[in-house]
Amino acid sequence: MAHREFTPTHYHNTIGWHEPVLAIAPGDTVSTTTVDARGQDQHGERVAERGNPMTGPFYIEGAEPGDTLVVHFDKLYPNRDWGWTARAIAPNVLDPGFTTGIERNDQPLRWPIDLAAGTATQPDVLPGLVLPLSPMLGCFGVAPPRGQAISTATSSTHGGNMDYRGFVAGATVCLPVEAPGALFHLGDGHAVQGDGEIVGTGVEISFDATFSVELHKGKQIGWPRGENATHIFVAGNARPLDQCVQHATSELVRWLVEDYKLSALSAHALLGQCVEYDMGNVYDPAYTMVCKVAKSLLADLGVG
Amino acid sequence: MAHREFTPTHYHNTIGWHEPVLAIAPGDTVSTTTVDARGQDQHGERVAERGNPMTGPFYIEGAEPGDTLVVHFDKLYPNRDWGWTARAIAPNVLDPGFTTGIERNDQPLRWPIDLAAGTATQPDVLPGLVLPLSPMLGCFGVAPPRGQAISTATSSTHGGNMDYRGFVAGATVCLPVEAPGALFHLGDGHAVQGDGEIVGTGVEISFDATFSVELHKGKQIGWPRGENATHIFVAGNARPLDQCVQHATSELVRWLVEDYKLSALSAHALLGQCVEYDMGNVYDPAYTMVCKVAKSLLADLGVG
Amino acid sequence: MAHREFTPTHYHNTIGWHEPVLAIAPGDTVSTTTVDARGQDQHGERVAERGNPMTGPFYIEGAEPGDTLVVHFDKLYPNRDWGWTARAIAPNVLDPGFTTGIERNDQPLRWPIDLAAGTATQPDVLPGLVLPLSPMLGCFGVAPPRGQAISTATSSTHGGNMDYRGFVAGATVCLPVEAPGALFHLGDGHAVQGDGEIVGTGVEISFDATFSVELHKGKQIGWPRGENATHIFVAGNARPLDQCVQHATSELVRWLVEDYKLSALSAHALLGQCVEYDMGNVYDPAYTMVCKVAKSLLADLGVG
Amino acid sequence: MAHREFTPTHYHNTIGWHEPVLAIAPGDTVSTTTVDARGQDQHGERVAERGNPMTGPFYIEGAEPGDTLVVHFDKLYPNRDWGWTARAIAPNVLDPGFTTGIERNDQPLRWPIDLAAGTATQPDVLPGLVLPLSPMLGCFGVAPPRGQAISTATSSTHGGNMDYRGFVAGATVCLPVEAPGALFHLGDGHAVQGDGEIVGTGVEISFDATFSVELHKGKQIGWPRGENATHIFVAGNARPLDQCVQHATSELVRWLVEDYKLSALSAHALLGQCVEYDMGNVYDPAYTMVCKVAKSLLADLGVG
Repeated sequence: MAHREFTPTHYHNTIGWHEPVLAIAPGDTVSTTTVDARGQDQHGERVAERGNPMTGPFYIEGAEPGDTLVVHFDKLYPNRDWGWTARAIAPNVLDPGFTTGIERNDQPLRWPIDLAAGTATQPDVLPGLVLPLSPMLGCFGVAPPRGQAISTATSSTHGGNMDYRGFVAGATVCLPVEAPGALFHLGDGHAVQGDGEIVGTGVEISFDATFSVELHKGKQIGWPRGENATHIFVAGNARPLDQCVQHATSELVRWLVEDYKLSALSAHALLGQCVEYDMGNVYDPAYTMVCKVAKSLLADLGVG
Repeated sequence: MAHREFTPTHYHNTIGWHEPVLAIAPGDTVSTTTVDARGQDQHGERVAERGNPMTGPFYIEGAEPGDTLVVHFDKLYPNRDWGWTARAIAPNVLDPGFTTGIERNDQPLRWPIDLAAGTATQPDVLPGLVLPLSPMLGCFGVAPPRGQAISTATSSTHGGNMDYRGFVAGATVCLPVEAPGALFHLGDGHAVQGDGEIVGTGVEISFDATFSVELHKGKQIGWPRGENATHIFVAGNARPLDQCVQHATSELVRWLVEDYKLSALSAHALLGQCVEYDMGNVYDPAYTMVCKVAKSLLADLGVG
Repeated sequence: MAHREFTPTHYHNTIGWHEPVLAIAPGDTVSTTTVDARGQDQHGERVAERGNPMTGPFYIEGAEPGDTLVVHFDKLYPNRDWGWTARAIAPNVLDPGFTTGIERNDQPLRWPIDLAAGTATQPDVLPGLVLPLSPMLGCFGVAPPRGQAISTATSSTHGGNMDYRGFVAGATVCLPVEAPGALFHLGDGHAVQGDGEIVGTGVEISFDATFSVELHKGKQIGWPRGENATHIFVAGNARPLDQCVQHATSELVRWLVEDYKLSALSAHALLGQCVEYDMGNVYDPAYTMVCKVAKSLLADLGVG
Repeated sequence: MAHREFTPTHYHNTIGWHEPVLAIAPGDTVSTTTVDARGQDQHGERVAERGNPMTGPFYIEGAEPGDTLVVHFDKLYPNRDWGWTARAIAPNVLDPGFTTGIERNDQPLRWPIDLAAGTATQPDVLPGLVLPLSPMLGCFGVAPPRGQAISTATSSTHGGNMDYRGFVAGATVCLPVEAPGALFHLGDGHAVQGDGEIVGTGVEISFDATFSVELHKGKQIGWPRGENATHIFVAGNARPLDQCVQHATSELVRWLVEDYKLSALSAHALLGQCVEYDMGNVYDPAYTMVCKVAKSLLADLGVG
């Protein structure tokens, strides 16, 4: 149950079977930092290559293929007073041929962050708007199967760039272990983000991040699962969104039947009238859809 | 500003350029009834052909192609004490080849409804679960362009079978007029429904329905728009869901720029960090995604 | 076995349960004309509304829901000396945000047609190119189920705007009868067309068209089927193309098992190593994919 | 211009930045072997892990990111007298819920190959059928961008598991170099294959393979390009197929404009009426569509 501090000195732009930066045990907590999507740290210095550079990977002792890694996000919070966003909704999120009237421009919009007040603003383009911070982790995951190293621009069964607004402090996520030690990576913090990350960015920023890990030995899952105060949920990552829906829904059915011991008919009937979906990333090569059900309903059914 | 009562005597299984059942004026309110998706009325009698039979169409005086019909849902509430649902999540919502373990069976599950308490239960399959009613209209729309008559199993620019949980009493919807008199149809009430209508049904039931109409002369819209206490929203209807996202997002950008007079850059930046998406139907030939933004944010920007 | 001449006096922009223009019997042959996609006839006169106006519908005596209509295309040939095309590949066929550098322009390109030589040219933009005519019918079909009237811009189980290069003289097509008399419509002739109709048009032109009909009483099919000198084939119409593949492949398996009496395993093994796909329309609301297998292989298996 | 012989001793199940097995120079020719998709060699011995194990990678001297690697397939031919196939069309290629009636079974069908006659048969399931061999390479590619190692089950800009019937001896393919030395991998030979690899396999077999390489220094391409006796073509790899169409078509337009110096309007008009599409893999995580145009047409236009 150690609390480890880790200061990264290098970063990865893929999630893969990389040399671990730290070995930790189930039960341990790690406090570290992440850089923003362009590799800028808490001081605004460019310390990593752009494209969602990851802190890690962390080696979890005892983790083997066929296990499930459980990660609890204890703290996810910006550690500098500005973030940045892209300017225009991505063409793949708009009708083919839709003309935005916005110059394509690599120059981001700068968003001042008031860390004490917990707010973000963009006075030039959105005068009057004061958004409460809602810090979330855009990209994290474990080493994928077959020795793959997968770009942090995309996502799959191992996690990756899911950009789901529900990956916040207080949430717990489960990931399928494919490599010895699981090899957990994290990065791409957003101070604020709309559903879908439709401009291709949230308010991109460096984070202080604290997480704790557990291990479910011999427990196999197919897709990232999660839990928060109110719901259990599954993230499906693919294209098109229809396929994300299929992956996430199928995995939630399996979860309800295998772990909550609902009959198939009860699981289907419950989801039929009570399921909820949240949309994650629709910008990147793989999109994300989250399928979830309220824990209170499971409690009502006597299985929660 | 008349209040009209209308008792249907026949129903349509397409939304089209059908003979109107009643002519009403902008400002008028209509109280009527709808039958359930299998054509069963408040007495449980089969009075229409199965497949989302519609009440109407209602002819709105003065409505012409190029106008927008505004419909406010004053009341949408079940008028009998039971509903029904299908049993299993549809194959197209699950992974290809996923085996449900549920016998395919046309026999629906019966859900007792406590109209006074406002609850729905299914004691056999979901013992212990008591769901609050959340009555919503699964299918409604106006006559589509080019003289088409489109099955009430699907949806498009004219509305149709969108199965969005946000089409509740208190919501206002806007539809693009394509036929003289607009020709408004409605039906397919659900006492309760999960996102996506993933078993192919909500808790299907007959409704008492009251709605009021207005007309925006000369106002052209591309997709169904709506408004409720907290949000403005657009429904995009197509397949795959990615295309729904494109339609709904593009239409919301147009709305913000043309009607709220946001600059393109402000509209994009606002949606980028504040947009929300809700998933409608993912069962039928055309899926639905709703793109929305909070009215409070528009107020903060001085345009709400 | 009558040979009927029919000169159209009006046209439909939907395929639906319209008043028939002529009643014919199984075995009959009809010679008629079609106008181009903008409603221009053999004299270049605008005689119908733009958007694939259809000649027909023809009522086939004895055809009832649950039957299959068989149409043989005896002749499909341009009847004037020019056609026209759109100028640019449609945005939905190109990468999101791809910039064409071509001015959007409703002004079509005019293609001189040499009817005697059987060639088409576009000397201004494609100097030196002399394309052999390959006349095909872009849009045809029977009245769709449930009394629908479906725009000739799209396609479904009833046929419609499939824009498949294989719908040429000599081909036979089968369509599922849903309305009394089947109600066969045809139009949208192309002198030449690339796969996919990716600019949104072929070389659009008016046709002389001759077709013969037969009826398979009590034979139900799910999707348009066809046959030519070398192959049997099925057209699947939907979006995305993946779904077209699913529809067309499933229907071809059913055909091989139910009609050719192959075992399921033989049908799957045959298609696995010998199936071919042709791409139809990828421009319109519903796309088309054709799944086919060579008749010689069926003969080799003793079932052809 | 050396001719190198290479006998593999190990294989990779990803295409990535692996240690090269041999360094060759532009102009060189390599003769080597590949194992089948389950890792079985010419003697039927299992020498590699199942899942498209690759021979290589080969390091091409002088190749740097931003170059294009040109590979000519001199010989691709089975080197043993049997292959194997899966039994049933994959669920994702059939309608959701379609019941095949075929037991799911990991046991492949064995196909005797007559190497001298150049034929394949499956006498038990397809008696009477004698298929001519049409040997093609299912999977090949260069190291992908950003240090990724991507499973040989899928495909992207770097090539990968495209399963296109056009990758035969005599074809030339171009791949975008992302890693020093390009790192060319190859494997997954098929003696015969239907379009789409819809049962998840061709007739899987080990190959003798001979290829030659060239380098286009400073030439950047976006997707695999190719050329054979009659056509130039581009492979687009993604999901859904619609996106493959977008990638392949956009890249072919770029090719025609940048290299063949057609005006944008000429390129669009040419493809509009003359483009052809072939379908590659529709079984794996990423699908493939090939967009092509006949070289004779380019010659007619004076640019071929």
